[in-house]
Amino acid sequence: MNDVSRPEARFADGIAFVDGDYVPIAEAKLPLLDYGFLRSDACQDTISVWKGQYFRREDHIDRFERSCQRLRFTSPHTRAQIRDILDRCCALTGFESAYLQMIMTRGCPPIGQRDIRKAVNRFQLFCLRYVWIASPEVQERGLNAMVSEVRRVPPQSVDPEVKHYHWLDFDMALFSAYDQGYETVLLTDFDGNVAEGPGFNVFAVKEGELLTPEGNVLDGMTRRTVFELASELNLKARLAKISPQALQGADEVFFSSTAGGIMPVSMLDKKAIGDGRPGPTTLRLRSLYWSKREAGWHGTPVNYSIGMAAAKAS
Amino acid sequence: MNDVSRPEARFADGIAFVDGDYVPIAEAKLPLLDYGFLRSDACQDTISVWKGQYFRREDHIDRFERSCQRLRFTSPHTRAQIRDILDRCCALTGFESAYLQMIMTRGCPPIGQRDIRKAVNRFQLFCLRYVWIASPEVQERGLNAMVSEVRRVPPQSVDPEVKHYHWLDFDMALFSAYDQGYETVLLTDFDGNVAEGPGFNVFAVKEGELLTPEGNVLDGMTRRTVFELASELNLKARLAKISPQALQGADEVFFSSTAGGIMPVSMLDKKAIGDGRPGPTTLRLRSLYWSKREAGWHGTPVNYSIGMAAAKAS
Repeated sequence: MNDVSRPEARFADGIAFVDGDYVPIAEAKLPLLDYGFLRSDACQDTISVWKGQYFRREDHIDRFERSCQRLRFTSPHTRAQIRDILDRCCALTGFESAYLQMIMTRGCPPIGQRDIRKAVNRFQLFCLRYVWIASPEVQERGLNAMVSEVRRVPPQSVDPEVKHYHWLDFDMALFSAYDQGYETVLLTDFDGNVAEGPGFNVFAVKEGELLTPEGNVLDGMTRRTVFELASELNLKARLAKISPQALQGADEVFFSSTAGGIMPVSMLDKKAIGDGRPGPTTLRLRSLYWSKREAGWHGTPVNYSIGMAAAKAS
Repeated sequence: MNDVSRPEARFADGIAFVDGDYVPIAEAKLPLLDYGFLRSDACQDTISVWKGQYFRREDHIDRFERSCQRLRFTSPHTRAQIRDILDRCCALTGFESAYLQMIMTRGCPPIGQRDIRKAVNRFQLFCLRYVWIASPEVQERGLNAMVSEVRRVPPQSVDPEVKHYHWLDFDMALFSAYDQGYETVLLTDFDGNVAEGPGFNVFAVKEGELLTPEGNVLDGMTRRTVFELASELNLKARLAKISPQALQGADEVFFSSTAGGIMPVSMLDKKAIGDGRPGPTTLRLRSLYWSKREAGWHGTPVNYSIGMAAAKAS
């Protein structure tokens, strides 16, 4: 951690920027009538910080702005202000490694009206310690996942280019997976092919080639990163239709996410993937991902001293 | 209004029951990290009060409990407590006619964890003055609506028996409809047939018979009521697949909703329905709906005196 940071005890569990103010995470709230809640009319993007550096910060802000534009949101903040809010959240918590989610919501039309054009859009952001979809310990042995017949909300209903909160499909499939002893779940698309999981993309390694579902999935930032890493390792990587059976038959399987990086899968639908341990290609990619991140690849240092300035000003 | 009610000025715009307390609607908030927001992992049911009487109160609570059960929610409140909260909201606002929404949310797992089984489910309720999807004035001439090619979130993704908040499909279709000069919109299902609109079901009248979409639509309470009214008027009514073309060619079209009752549609996709004015069967149904409600059909009187007791106790 940068030594000019002065983390505050009240932000020890996290912080949020809400209504123009910085509040302890437990106090962060959304108006009950915000259509971001009542209609899930909202979008988000999540940036990670690892050892004091944002990863692909501008790419995440680009994608966030694209989501906002597609939902016709007008941000009350400039890009420079968003960068500033990100820095202040890191500085005020002192988190060396963090999970930062930027959120736009529709807001609320005047009481008693329902015209979404009259709503004032709202921006909020929260910051927690770095989140792992699979902890480093679980990653050592690999995840135990299932493929569900629940279909991911399709593009004919909701624009998949928007990082949205329509997740009841994921959550109900998760309950079913937990019931059956799995740790997490993958949903399928309307053709029955593998789509994505709650917060992550999936890759198969087959005969030295990387495959990841095309079509109705989020354009994941770590997924994009995997293609770059593959290129560096001279591995072929491409989009493909992947049936649940093809995924079971892969040599290796891994998940990619801002919340955990590249995470090996060792069991799928109660069958071992490969020899039932994280595969060599997965481990090479994972190792390269973290070593390059720590070396500053796609990195922007957090300005922890901004917290000092804010503290002095107040 | 019952004269024992003592409405409070701070509740003039509405009230909410949140965290065990009654607060002015503008102050009602949800934790930002509640998965009810971050994953739209929530359900609701909406009851109306007209001239001091709930309509089908127990049916709405039944449906709410069914939604909660299907999402595996554990309510912190008994049915009797929910009835009590409904009454207090009416009493404290003094609203003679009201729109009351009961909400369950997943809640939040402990900070930094993602296991939905560890979340503590939350109940909240808000109460506004009676809401009209189409005002009485608009109903006099009939609504001007379009059928969109956006597909309603399908049952393979989200259980349609649950009254949920996955509404980005509706909101984005609404923007498109507004752009083209329409007042509201109907979505279609994956076969291209008419499904439902944002907060309402649709009926066609064709050769004296009532038709309403079968399949992927909410089991609307007013829709159910229309079947009972039709029976009383000796009109045939049934579920059917209805193409956009069939709807355009109907003799009459109307919407049904807790927020507005039975609402005539006079223009669809820029074509007049019938002679372009609310049709006679629609008007008979609408008139019967309101006269029977006012006469106490399916009604339960609001206990406005509960507000007094609460005020005295505090």
